[in-house]
Amino acid sequence: MNTSAELSPTLQLTIDLIREPSVTPHDADCQTLMIRRLEAIGFRVERLRFGDVDNFWARRGEDGPVFCFAGHTDVVPTGPVEQWTVPPFEPRIEDGILTGRGAADMKGSLAAMVVACERFVLTHPDHRGSIAFLITSDEEGVAVDGTVRVVETLEARNEKITWCLVGEPSSTTQVGDVIKNGRRGSLGGVLTVHGRQGHVAYPHLADNPIHRAAPALAELTAEVWDHGNQFFPATSFQISNINAGTGASNVIPGDLQVVFNFRFSTELTETQLRERTETILDRHGLRYTLDWKLSGHPFLTARGELVEAAVGAIRAVTGRETELSTSGGTSDGRFIAPTGAQVLELGPVNKTIHQIDECVAAADLDTLTDLYEGILERLLT
Amino acid sequence: MNTSAELSPTLQLTIDLIREPSVTPHDADCQTLMIRRLEAIGFRVERLRFGDVDNFWARRGEDGPVFCFAGHTDVVPTGPVEQWTVPPFEPRIEDGILTGRGAADMKGSLAAMVVACERFVLTHPDHRGSIAFLITSDEEGVAVDGTVRVVETLEARNEKITWCLVGEPSSTTQVGDVIKNGRRGSLGGVLTVHGRQGHVAYPHLADNPIHRAAPALAELTAEVWDHGNQFFPATSFQISNINAGTGASNVIPGDLQVVFNFRFSTELTETQLRERTETILDRHGLRYTLDWKLSGHPFLTARGELVEAAVGAIRAVTGRETELSTSGGTSDGRFIAPTGAQVLELGPVNKTIHQIDECVAAADLDTLTDLYEGILERLLT
Repeated sequence: MNTSAELSPTLQLTIDLIREPSVTPHDADCQTLMIRRLEAIGFRVERLRFGDVDNFWARRGEDGPVFCFAGHTDVVPTGPVEQWTVPPFEPRIEDGILTGRGAADMKGSLAAMVVACERFVLTHPDHRGSIAFLITSDEEGVAVDGTVRVVETLEARNEKITWCLVGEPSSTTQVGDVIKNGRRGSLGGVLTVHGRQGHVAYPHLADNPIHRAAPALAELTAEVWDHGNQFFPATSFQISNINAGTGASNVIPGDLQVVFNFRFSTELTETQLRERTETILDRHGLRYTLDWKLSGHPFLTARGELVEAAVGAIRAVTGRETELSTSGGTSDGRFIAPTGAQVLELGPVNKTIHQIDECVAAADLDTLTDLYEGILERLLT
Repeated sequence: MNTSAELSPTLQLTIDLIREPSVTPHDADCQTLMIRRLEAIGFRVERLRFGDVDNFWARRGEDGPVFCFAGHTDVVPTGPVEQWTVPPFEPRIEDGILTGRGAADMKGSLAAMVVACERFVLTHPDHRGSIAFLITSDEEGVAVDGTVRVVETLEARNEKITWCLVGEPSSTTQVGDVIKNGRRGSLGGVLTVHGRQGHVAYPHLADNPIHRAAPALAELTAEVWDHGNQFFPATSFQISNINAGTGASNVIPGDLQVVFNFRFSTELTETQLRERTETILDRHGLRYTLDWKLSGHPFLTARGELVEAAVGAIRAVTGRETELSTSGGTSDGRFIAPTGAQVLELGPVNKTIHQIDECVAAADLDTLTDLYEGILERLLT
């Protein structure tokens, strides 16, 4: 591996962060590493521990507008360590590729944020507005005591974020080729269809919930919920789990359980999805119970200062015309957007995230540092 | 409880048999109790133990026709003993009701068979043809080393049964009100529908096997397979188990498994059912694997000497016009019928079989003894 003399500040900090085995919801000492660097350049740092989760809020400047870097120090579990070509918490750079758990999601982004601030503050010690950090160690887990709680704390004292850049790995093949300017909503349901247990030889004495449900499920999977819009793909419905049966092949089960999830566009509301689902179930005469759980409303940051700053920085640094996208999974942006902030995600290539041998091109992290610095230049000078 | 002085021979033997805790596939000493009594009245007995299963074949007489009593000494497990009002293997008669595991299924029948033979042989020591017993201790279990193997043994030496009376509890409210002169076929299938696993946020990269299968399952459950005939109810299709999913609510599963069962009439063959099922699956473009297992072809004993003897005995003893039925589950009759034997099931009321507090009216077992003796009178004198 390269000696530290050869490494850029961003790569060196990324490696130091990956060496902390911060499997969700643990931070290990990642936040302390970041906080020391931020305090050294004039940030006031507030540690906010909720339950088992370490979070911090850091701010440099008193006035608005407030530009906030948001991210998480926790990583997903390694999976079978013996399948990795390097130990997952002993990162290595070979042929220009940095491999280690969190390299792409998202310790590389965290390091790029810190180093971009160091450079920006050096050249603009009296920048306008404020720079902030909202960092959690529970994004990959249940996300209950993380960003949600920090946002509540800020809201309680009416401290507002103007622009928020989340470091999630948004890029698909080259750094900066895609930024996410919104996310679909996510609405989950657990459906239990009730029947009456019995023996397969006496079906007239039983009421098979699988048979009852089959045509309703066929209709739900065939339904066109919307056609999306210019920002969002069409709303999708997916059944993730279906279970019924005692294990015995001669018993008609009493209940069927179906777990499903909507990823929905801004064309539909949670209420409309619930009503349309229940209308279909009712039309098929099912006896059922249905528990709904909203994971996040859809949000969208239309073109404006933040998007323009990102598009401009990407064009200037890489020569690329970036693509705005709202596809993919959820992120902590869903908790920040409802406060009125403009929210955007920009980070490294996401091809290997959550996988064995998670990796990122080392040079991309330096490019990302340039992008973050360029965005600060555009918004706070 | 009554003293033995008050008990009829059938009730006394039933109680002695129930006291043997012969939970499937164990015989305890039930067969020995029966064999002693049969040897005493001139039966030659052959014990046929296969694997863990005790069976015996007994015969009195050298010539045809051969009338055979068939049955099993094993019982189903008791379930929670504390829910019984009497200990399940310490039978009690109260208010004319005999309670104990196996009272109805089918130690009462076994006792009635033995006592009916004792009385018949006493009055007809030189009856025509032969009387036989085919007894197993593995009817309630996997039924692999029981009646199937004994029938193979008999077939190998070309020893034929003309008429077979299985002591399964065929009656519904009064003893003799229903006899079973056939059974539906039973054909099972284990269907695996193949898709491609993925994340619910990226459904276009996955292939949800639940969504693929839903319309096919809806069609299978709505299909009219046949309308039955004068002997059989319509063929029924039932899904007993359906399972897919990793447990996580955001993962589209790779496979769906469906376990189903046909109970089918003589209007259809196993081959037709398989072909029609696969045609429906193919029409929906599913990728699947499907493992079939035939538990038994349908069989039917049309009116003839055996049915007439039973109908006549029931009318003479009870005054009832019995009903011929082919409904309900399978029995070991499915293994005997293919040898060419006429097969019929006649036994006590089946209302409490396999339940807590299994019971039978004590007087019914004496009536059943009269019925069995009456059938022997009609066929072998």
